Amino acid sequence: MGAAKTAISPTRVEDYPEWYQQVIKGADLAENSAVRGCMVIKPWGYAIWENMQRVLDQMFKDTGHQNAYFPLFIPMSFLEKEAQHVEGFAKECAVVTHHRLEPDGKGGLRPAGLLEEPLIVRPTSETIIGATYAKWVQSYRDLPILINQWANVVRWEMRTRLFLRTTEFLWQEGHTVHATSEEAMEETRKMLDVYADFVENYMAVPVIKGEKTAGERFPGADMTLSIEAMMQDRKALQAGTSHFLGQNFSKAQEIKFQDKNGEIAYAWTTSWGVSTRLVGALIMTHSDDDGLVLPPRLAPSQIVLIPIYRDEAQHAEVLEYCKALKQELAAQMYSEQKIRVDIDDRDVRSADKKWYHIKRGVPVRIEIGPKDIAKNAAFVGRRDTNQSQSMPRDELVGGIVAMLTEIQNNLFSRALAMQKANTVELKSEAEFREFFQPDDEQGQSTGGGFAKCWFASEAEVQGLLDELKVTIRCIPLDAPSGEGVCFLTGKPTATQAIFAKSY
Amino acid sequence: MGAAKTAISPTRVEDYPEWYQQVIKGADLAENSAVRGCMVIKPWGYAIWENMQRVLDQMFKDTGHQNAYFPLFIPMSFLEKEAQHVEGFAKECAVVTHHRLEPDGKGGLRPAGLLEEPLIVRPTSETIIGATYAKWVQSYRDLPILINQWANVVRWEMRTRLFLRTTEFLWQEGHTVHATSEEAMEETRKMLDVYADFVENYMAVPVIKGEKTAGERFPGADMTLSIEAMMQDRKALQAGTSHFLGQNFSKAQEIKFQDKNGEIAYAWTTSWGVSTRLVGALIMTHSDDDGLVLPPRLAPSQIVLIPIYRDEAQHAEVLEYCKALKQELAAQMYSEQKIRVDIDDRDVRSADKKWYHIKRGVPVRIEIGPKDIAKNAAFVGRRDTNQSQSMPRDELVGGIVAMLTEIQNNLFSRALAMQKANTVELKSEAEFREFFQPDDEQGQSTGGGFAKCWFASEAEVQGLLDELKVTIRCIPLDAPSGEGVCFLTGKPTATQAIFAKSY
Repeated sequence: MGAAKTAISPTRVEDYPEWYQQVIKGADLAENSAVRGCMVIKPWGYAIWENMQRVLDQMFKDTGHQNAYFPLFIPMSFLEKEAQHVEGFAKECAVVTHHRLEPDGKGGLRPAGLLEEPLIVRPTSETIIGATYAKWVQSYRDLPILINQWANVVRWEMRTRLFLRTTEFLWQEGHTVHATSEEAMEETRKMLDVYADFVENYMAVPVIKGEKTAGERFPGADMTLSIEAMMQDRKALQAGTSHFLGQNFSKAQEIKFQDKNGEIAYAWTTSWGVSTRLVGALIMTHSDDDGLVLPPRLAPSQIVLIPIYRDEAQHAEVLEYCKALKQELAAQMYSEQKIRVDIDDRDVRSADKKWYHIKRGVPVRIEIGPKDIAKNAAFVGRRDTNQSQSMPRDELVGGIVAMLTEIQNNLFSRALAMQKANTVELKSEAEFREFFQPDDEQGQSTGGGFAKCWFASEAEVQGLLDELKVTIRCIPLDAPSGEGVCFLTGKPTATQAIFAKSY
Repeated sequence: MGAAKTAISPTRVEDYPEWYQQVIKGADLAENSAVRGCMVIKPWGYAIWENMQRVLDQMFKDTGHQNAYFPLFIPMSFLEKEAQHVEGFAKECAVVTHHRLEPDGKGGLRPAGLLEEPLIVRPTSETIIGATYAKWVQSYRDLPILINQWANVVRWEMRTRLFLRTTEFLWQEGHTVHATSEEAMEETRKMLDVYADFVENYMAVPVIKGEKTAGERFPGADMTLSIEAMMQDRKALQAGTSHFLGQNFSKAQEIKFQDKNGEIAYAWTTSWGVSTRLVGALIMTHSDDDGLVLPPRLAPSQIVLIPIYRDEAQHAEVLEYCKALKQELAAQMYSEQKIRVDIDDRDVRSADKKWYHIKRGVPVRIEIGPKDIAKNAAFVGRRDTNQSQSMPRDELVGGIVAMLTEIQNNLFSRALAMQKANTVELKSEAEFREFFQPDDEQGQSTGGGFAKCWFASEAEVQGLLDELKVTIRCIPLDAPSGEGVCFLTGKPTATQAIFAKSY
């Protein structure tokens, strides 16, 4: 693990975008499929997503939500009902037009059975779920409706990248209905907090909570809140969004109810979602030039035991020792679950095994050979620091929960330090241009980070942002109040936002 | 709960198909959506599916499988590669032909961006997964591949019915690859056993394990095993299938590997699946004329506490008692999980609450009023027997696990008795015709059941089966060996099968 040799080539410094692809390949997380823009999520990648799902699902239930399932297809006419919504999604959706195949007379097949109305594969489900809610909601007694759905969605992206932007992706989408604006707003904020809690405390990725500017809102929303994370190339990644939809969708879809005074009112709705994109954020925040680094709370395997032996007699002895050690480790609780421990007893060279697990990001590797057994010790490697040391067995067993906790915390601290070190306040166009240099030819960021800037008008700064490929990420919820001076126009303004290049 | 009044109308005897719809409505399980043939699975129905998923997922993992995720879309050309497979699925599939919408010039939208090759929304994933496996498998060292996927699939069914047959449904599909025929066959049988274990021991639905005849096989399979359950109208429902695919798909998709002798060989594959159809089987096996009846191991709520009170003072007292009781009940383990207990403290008449939970099939209802508290007792109703009685609190708390176990067992025994009572051996065409009377005008079975019949040739009996709307369900794995006489032709034969009308 010296400085010279790395398991992943190229390194982050050499070519960050390609490094990202190679980390995914090296960790066996996912690959491109034969279908344009759709990925295959491989077992190790899917196991990370399952862990994310399990934690998030419990958080949703703890905040009063239930799961349900709504159709994959949306009639084209439903999409037309909300003008901004269709504007946002019509340009990139999969359209089902036929319901069977027939021989084409040339030995192949062709679509047949033309549908009366085309169906859209859901890019998001506000319209189809809203149409259902309109039937469910009659009285204020039917409210609130607090429902989440785990589903696949399709957006016909032109440029795709594993996990970050794929044609099909997996996500959850919460859709809630409330009697009052205040309640819907409270829900919108609450779910942003749930996301921030999850991303910071489980993914160990620090985020900035903020509000999107009008130009960056979800199509059809009155307000969009997001959490923004900084990747190691200092670009921003939007990790989750929570939308206050006002009465836009309830008016488009007639979600009405009789209120306590007997009057008919339109309901207030919200929606919120996170997706398999989070796996991309996880990869890009923690991984290093040896591959994936996983935070213990989400690692499918938190500890791997690697038996080291020369012959079958040693093998049997070492394996027995490993099994006993596994039992003791796996009996302990970490993050409200039994510790996940595996023994890698494959017939593979132990050096190859070690690198295999390094590349897959297993938080703790424990190598056990006859010499270790002789001194009742183990050789323990931490993936976060890439430090290894021999430890007495008792100390290892007794301290494993503390070690996992320390790794989890270390990853977060490191990412937070990176984010803080690359967040600056900029006060002029010159400073702004200096900070946001163009990407190099590999699409690699050559500087930049999060820039806090006072600005007066989204329209006035748009030209500069387009030129530099920078976007307004959010107006942080903890942005300073008071007044500042627009970095571009010098006009007085009450708004400070985070500007960054982004994924 | 007298004989005169039932919560569900019509009753099973009056109109079984309509009773089924009304049970679903009364229990709030699902409803039809605005999209033809696609259902909305409501929270109570989805929670049952989640419980099924949790148990099955663990069973799959315990038998060495990992989860992964493959694309929703299948290129049309992939489907063409396996002749029988395309024959089986081409007539009922959703075809994506465009990737965006554009204004149609009349204020609406129309499909645009024609795809070079149409995409099929997966009706099952052998072809797209097989194409991926072909890349993964190079050597015998890469085998076996044991992967499961939880996913939605689409089959354009002309006649749909909630849970039983819907255009989109949720399921899991296992897809495995093996080096030898024997290993693939063992996997095929093992997964059938897993399904039978789940359906009998969790769903409390007895099944017959058997092999499908050639005419009833999965398109492209060399052998299909299934589990068949008897519904209360004596029709059969195929509850799960496990397919030995031989080398058919590996040859169509070039899943080849270098074996231990250095020779290139085609691999052997299997696939197996169960779907949200199981929810339909659950409903139709146990429910009665008062609505849904849930087996405790899968019930989202195993016990509901209903506070009975007249005024706010009583309410406070009763609620406090309920909360304490809930804690004691919910602290106990049943079926490897904490018992799931809810308090229904809604502002609704207690009689309405009672019927609400009866219709939703909650296994145990506990009503608590001031009088019960005074004598330290509770009024306990069992959904399986519809019997209620006052029980001392201690006896209730101490015996709750036994009671849930007894309910679970009782449901299974009852269903098994029903199945046995309606399974007969038939020896002649006359007996066969007498047993399988035509359905009445509501599509209701007027007799029938499972008929064990020796038969010589699938082709020879097909005409009679079509006439009576009967199918061969399976050749039971425990069918008698030896020889019999074909019920129709009188020819000698070694094959006895189960014949039944079916869903």
